[in-house]
Amino acid sequence: MNASAPSTATLAEMANAIRFLSMDAVEKAKSGHPGMPMGMADVATVLYTKFMKFDAKTPRWADRDRFVLSAGHGSMLLYALGYLTGYEDLDIDQLKNFRQLGYRTAGHPEFGHVAIADTTTGPLGQGITNAVGMALAEAMQAARFGSGIVDHYTYAIAGDGCLMEGISQEAITMAGHWKLSKLIVLWDDNHICIDGDTSLSTSDDQAKRFAAAGWNTLACDGHDFAAIEKAIEAARKSDKPTLIACRTTIGKGAPNKCGTEKVHGAPLGADEIKAARDAANWPYEPFVIPEHVLAAWRAAGARGASARADWDGRVAKMDAAARDLFTRTNEGRLPEGWQSVISDFKKKISAETPKVATRKASQDVLEVVTAAIPEMIGGSADLTHSNLTDTKACKPSIKSGEFAGRYIHYGIREFGMAAVMNGIALHGGFVPYGGTFLIFANYLWPALRMTALMEQRVLFVLTHDSIGLGEDGPTHQPIETVAALRATPNTLVFRPADAVETAEAYEVALLNETGPSCFALSRQNLPTVRTTHTDENLTAKGAYVLAEAEGKRQVTLLATGSEVSMALEARALLAEKGVAAAVVSMPCWELFDRQSKEYRSKVLGEGTVRVAVEALTTFGWERYVGLDGAVIGMTGFGASAPADKLYQHFGITAQAVADAALARL
Amino acid sequence: MNASAPSTATLAEMANAIRFLSMDAVEKAKSGHPGMPMGMADVATVLYTKFMKFDAKTPRWADRDRFVLSAGHGSMLLYALGYLTGYEDLDIDQLKNFRQLGYRTAGHPEFGHVAIADTTTGPLGQGITNAVGMALAEAMQAARFGSGIVDHYTYAIAGDGCLMEGISQEAITMAGHWKLSKLIVLWDDNHICIDGDTSLSTSDDQAKRFAAAGWNTLACDGHDFAAIEKAIEAARKSDKPTLIACRTTIGKGAPNKCGTEKVHGAPLGADEIKAARDAANWPYEPFVIPEHVLAAWRAAGARGASARADWDGRVAKMDAAARDLFTRTNEGRLPEGWQSVISDFKKKISAETPKVATRKASQDVLEVVTAAIPEMIGGSADLTHSNLTDTKACKPSIKSGEFAGRYIHYGIREFGMAAVMNGIALHGGFVPYGGTFLIFANYLWPALRMTALMEQRVLFVLTHDSIGLGEDGPTHQPIETVAALRATPNTLVFRPADAVETAEAYEVALLNETGPSCFALSRQNLPTVRTTHTDENLTAKGAYVLAEAEGKRQVTLLATGSEVSMALEARALLAEKGVAAAVVSMPCWELFDRQSKEYRSKVLGEGTVRVAVEALTTFGWERYVGLDGAVIGMTGFGASAPADKLYQHFGITAQAVADAALARL
Repeated sequence: MNASAPSTATLAEMANAIRFLSMDAVEKAKSGHPGMPMGMADVATVLYTKFMKFDAKTPRWADRDRFVLSAGHGSMLLYALGYLTGYEDLDIDQLKNFRQLGYRTAGHPEFGHVAIADTTTGPLGQGITNAVGMALAEAMQAARFGSGIVDHYTYAIAGDGCLMEGISQEAITMAGHWKLSKLIVLWDDNHICIDGDTSLSTSDDQAKRFAAAGWNTLACDGHDFAAIEKAIEAARKSDKPTLIACRTTIGKGAPNKCGTEKVHGAPLGADEIKAARDAANWPYEPFVIPEHVLAAWRAAGARGASARADWDGRVAKMDAAARDLFTRTNEGRLPEGWQSVISDFKKKISAETPKVATRKASQDVLEVVTAAIPEMIGGSADLTHSNLTDTKACKPSIKSGEFAGRYIHYGIREFGMAAVMNGIALHGGFVPYGGTFLIFANYLWPALRMTALMEQRVLFVLTHDSIGLGEDGPTHQPIETVAALRATPNTLVFRPADAVETAEAYEVALLNETGPSCFALSRQNLPTVRTTHTDENLTAKGAYVLAEAEGKRQVTLLATGSEVSMALEARALLAEKGVAAAVVSMPCWELFDRQSKEYRSKVLGEGTVRVAVEALTTFGWERYVGLDGAVIGMTGFGASAPADKLYQHFGITAQAVADAALARL
Repeated sequence: MNASAPSTATLAEMANAIRFLSMDAVEKAKSGHPGMPMGMADVATVLYTKFMKFDAKTPRWADRDRFVLSAGHGSMLLYALGYLTGYEDLDIDQLKNFRQLGYRTAGHPEFGHVAIADTTTGPLGQGITNAVGMALAEAMQAARFGSGIVDHYTYAIAGDGCLMEGISQEAITMAGHWKLSKLIVLWDDNHICIDGDTSLSTSDDQAKRFAAAGWNTLACDGHDFAAIEKAIEAARKSDKPTLIACRTTIGKGAPNKCGTEKVHGAPLGADEIKAARDAANWPYEPFVIPEHVLAAWRAAGARGASARADWDGRVAKMDAAARDLFTRTNEGRLPEGWQSVISDFKKKISAETPKVATRKASQDVLEVVTAAIPEMIGGSADLTHSNLTDTKACKPSIKSGEFAGRYIHYGIREFGMAAVMNGIALHGGFVPYGGTFLIFANYLWPALRMTALMEQRVLFVLTHDSIGLGEDGPTHQPIETVAALRATPNTLVFRPADAVETAEAYEVALLNETGPSCFALSRQNLPTVRTTHTDENLTAKGAYVLAEAEGKRQVTLLATGSEVSMALEARALLAEKGVAAAVVSMPCWELFDRQSKEYRSKVLGEGTVRVAVEALTTFGWERYVGLDGAVIGMTGFGASAPADKLYQHFGITAQAVADAALARL
């Protein structure tokens, strides 16, 4: 490829094409971030002309190199690269309408909007962590299918912001621990953050820091094409992940504003852009790229076509079973007939009616689904024996150099785990699930939000889901967490009442290809409430009548998870008083809200007294009980004591539920 | 002091006292974490007998050394130390009732429950970050009052969990950057995490990592008293913060289980405890400490009394104004008469009726309150010019060696900022406020939860509070964040409609000494809706009738922040149709929920059609509109476009509000 590689003079013009497209698009949009694309234009030009394995006409090629613009505010870098290299979804009209409604060129790059975006970035630090997940997924796929089929690099551009965010530490220690040698981070080392010089807030020696995490570290002048090329070449040969500190000038090309925070996040203004054009000898109108420069870029974009065609040939020659597995898992299709294990499991539970914690039920379900679905990859943020996320099928664990396993010890890194799972899902080929305590969903929430925004299938196993965890106390008792997850768009939140609902929840979650699913699971044992088997997945309806009233329904008791059996007790207490109450189990609000008005009205018992009970914040329940109903739950933080004492202490009891209903009759 | 220091043999017995109290308490509670207290007993014994400046009888002495048990699950270490050294709130009965309802000895140490806890710990990584805040507060107070009055160390014990959490990186880079030389972290380097050996999930060279952040690093055998003493002595002399890697055996003293994850989080069992007693030649009954050991410990607890008395003398000799300021700020009392600046500000705004963004209004309010309240310490997570958190009074910024300033460049470290602010507040003497984009409250939420749990006065300035931020797109547009904050116990969430409400919100927040206050502030300009001045703080009621209906009220329009003016427009549209509508501004739900039923009923307009509008998730609004009302808001993620286009696109308009009301009449 290097034989026909562009000359240094051409490279300079190619980089300037990125710069002027960025300046012009930000100027026209009257908002955006020109400084980063201008500063990193030279590095990106070398990467995309000499190294990136991609084919602009087949953008989702499974074995392409991945590219993560972790500093997502520099989105024009990505859009410029996409347009210049010939991605069909990025014509010049898209760039002219940067940040406008109905166009693909959003303020921050969004996965699914433009083919060149391998992930959505903007919330700093998450992009490089996604990149770790992608590099891990590459290693796992290569271990399964061989390096003839899976053999690509993951490149990420990160700024000081990404490296200051704490999650970056979680990312780099995971990558270093696993020795993900095909991960290369290009650090835009420009010494500028938004408030001013980075010396305002940091004195870190980044190279030392990355070395301490087991990385190879290199540095180069980020405006010297040969130096950049040499560094990337060396990085590719390392047996460790590599950080390349690219010393750059932010806003390079803006004669007066470059090198200051002024070019970071605002249009340069007509005068400065004119000065930039003069200085660069770039006489072209806004958004006009001279033909020879565009041709050079388009050649770069077509560079990978033959490699891609060769790869197609190798895939065609794969063993049929392996190819089917590779194709099926890359496409995200689950194996034929997997759902029968759910049905079998439900039958067994309904017959045996065990009293088990839903975290244990979750493990039992995971045992059968991970056996049926080989692409499921488990893990926990160092709470394996508490979350019960390990299964026989998922053994052995992933280790450095041993990527054939199916279980990941993420360490005490909840946020990092979630963002790595996003990277694994985005890469394709796997369905990741990971566990932590529900309270630590607060730590990983910003990544789960990205799972939802990017519409990825990631499963969050969140155990110890209420004051029911007992003695660990209020620091560990989630009160507000489930409400926050319910408030997060495109997120399914399950709080199953027993092992049957747990199995049903997993079935829905695995079928839900376009967003995260969260399981809030009990530490404490719960009785089986679904004692009659039905093939129908009742949890898929979000809520259903678990026990209809005897006679005309006067009261509707709504509950989730561990409080469903309490509602059944309250129903019995009410029956003693001659009051006919139904119990509605509501394992998933979001799914219930999607049902027909008729169904919802019937389940909720129009005109009946409604009482909800959930050992979590009462916040949000008014959606179902209205202004006249009652909610039995938590309004403050919990306490440290045995679980049964806490339920009594906070007045979350069957008697309290019954009393609240009676008071409203 | 060293003249009467205990012998090595006595130290060994003293450490064993910690070990057996920990074993016995966990055994009796049938839950808890013995491994860490046993492993770190020797280190803690050296620290508390030779170095810690404290007086068990005056536990809140302002110039005491601070001690943070960042690995909070090892709470028995702290409770044992408290009992042994003679803290009056920790008698043996408290230890016998470890983790029981109504006792102070919670599963994780809770600030305010036991005097020895300088912070609440448990959520890993936050404790050491609080410690950074405490050490910074010490430096800031010393710069103001001199080292004769303020001169103490901050010690923290951290485990592998704390150091794996990403926030630890934010903490150590801040401490290294500021050269907080009186911060000493004792790392419980035991090679064990919950899943097993730490090599399952990490290969970090911690010493290198801390050195890269500008720390002094030392190591010692954590079971060699002399080595521990030597290391702490050296650390105290460093001009940098110090990490001491204390190589320990987890569960040291448990002959069969020590050194494995089995001792981490479960009772050892009667057999193992008996074996431990035999091995240590410790024939005493559970919870019994032999007299000579208790006496040695009590002597250690009384060690600081004379230093404390000397200090009292120095305080008495302070210049009266300085002493008053020192005492007042340590007690958290605001200066006399400060509220007049709020009143003056409100008057001015109501007269001038500017059209300004509430983030700008916030800056204008901060200008006057920071001038009136010298203990306020500002800052931003590298968004100063966007959050508008800087004021004239807060200049200059804090720098290494220059701690007299009042503004902190926290860097791109939202979570770290929040946890440092918690540490500053816990230390005492200051009222911290810090800014970031509202969406990044998702990043800092776990620390804000601790602010709420610990009942600390910390102000969160959260700008760019809806799709109204426009072009930056869905990664930056908070949808669910405000709902999550509202669901968090003991948290005030303000979304002011204009500059008057912004001023009122700050007044309430500064008076709210027992919890966090959050300000959700607009990027875009908003008209002044409070055009008539009143001395009464209407925001303190949470919600109020901003514009009563003309004639008998048929419709009640509920709104917050940027949508209040939209509700006023809708009211006018309805008036055109002959419909009488009132507009209720609801800047703070939590405060409204505390009002009398009568007031709430009157404001919400019992029997009227209710429509709420807020450019955030609709989740939670049913509390006020019930099942029959309407909520105009967001149900999915936003998009990248100019703000006005987005409001149209998502149907959040005055017309939509009016139409929703009309449809329900």
